[in-house]
Amino acid sequence: MSTPEPDQVAAPRRGRPGHDQETVLRQAIELFNAQGYDGTSMGDLAKALGLTKSAIYHHVPSKTHLLSLALDEALDGLTAVIDEAEQASAGASAYERLRRAVQLSVEVLVAHQPAVTLLLRVRGNSEVELDALRRRRAIDTRLAALVQQAVDEGSLRSDVSPQLVSRLLFGMVNSLVEWHRPGGAVDAHQLSEAITTIAFDGLATHQS
Amino acid sequence: MSTPEPDQVAAPRRGRPGHDQETVLRQAIELFNAQGYDGTSMGDLAKALGLTKSAIYHHVPSKTHLLSLALDEALDGLTAVIDEAEQASAGASAYERLRRAVQLSVEVLVAHQPAVTLLLRVRGNSEVELDALRRRRAIDTRLAALVQQAVDEGSLRSDVSPQLVSRLLFGMVNSLVEWHRPGGAVDAHQLSEAITTIAFDGLATHQS
Repeated sequence: MSTPEPDQVAAPRRGRPGHDQETVLRQAIELFNAQGYDGTSMGDLAKALGLTKSAIYHHVPSKTHLLSLALDEALDGLTAVIDEAEQASAGASAYERLRRAVQLSVEVLVAHQPAVTLLLRVRGNSEVELDALRRRRAIDTRLAALVQQAVDEGSLRSDVSPQLVSRLLFGMVNSLVEWHRPGGAVDAHQLSEAITTIAFDGLATHQS
Repeated sequence: MSTPEPDQVAAPRRGRPGHDQETVLRQAIELFNAQGYDGTSMGDLAKALGLTKSAIYHHVPSKTHLLSLALDEALDGLTAVIDEAEQASAGASAYERLRRAVQLSVEVLVAHQPAVTLLLRVRGNSEVELDALRRRRAIDTRLAALVQQAVDEGSLRSDVSPQLVSRLLFGMVNSLVEWHRPGGAVDAHQLSEAITTIAFDGLATHQS
């Protein structure tokens, strides 16, 4: 297998990793999810890619760098969701913005499922992980604010605390990384419809 | 520290592990959750307990045995939930049985949170883990059947597939192991009320 020089592969295109770095990143995320970040060596990664260990370092400077790229992918996607929901047209109610945030979150989770799976397992064992947890908390805070605004507006029930609503709502969204399989029977649109229907309208046919 | 003879500590009381084995088990579950099962050695466990490694083996035969006890604790609790929900009084509707299953599941998750957390992270890397996954799937199948019965009865909406409802509903329930802290601001009763309210009655004050 050819091992291009770093300047051929590492140059970012429109802020995205280069093609070969992208291949390494996908394989790294898969291994991190399957056997844990700590349980994955650069040697494991090279082996899975059919490269020598030294060839890997032509593509990426370190394992930490791969973790950082993976977590940024997930966090950038989720941040864009909340940006878009918050900036929804001036006429949108808080209820509509929250519902939109839920729909878009499901789409990001499905489109970036391996990276989001990795993010959801981060426990803060390094500076990169602590940074990711800080960014994740900032997103959670903004989502909880959307919930609060919908409660204040009178469109969301007020008998459950907004913080608890936010945790359970996005707990349901996030749970799909545990069982959703890309290309399976249920696509992103069906998932986002099902989740918003259950969460906002409830499962019961008659309110009890 | 004294190291009682095996026959003093390993004798099960009413089917529960003996007192000292129980202490070892709690510490093992904590370490398995914090650093992974594979990343935890019996030496780590001994150190955390202030015992010698050989003393640990007076209490438990192996690390696998500890994993098995922990997963059984979670699975026995969840199986008891579905047993109770299925055997609810003859007058109970399928809707009431399902709602009861959700409430009881939350209580078991909160009461056995470390063991359930461990169960939810099992990926089938050993015979013990594969057995646990089989038992978990059997529980999931019975929960999905309760959902189906409530749909058939007409009390649950039929525009989302029962299997998807079951996954999202218990996905929301299971998500609480990620953020619920024992002794925190929200107790098991409040959690189970919040989850059943959101899932069955929906968040919206007016149905859209």
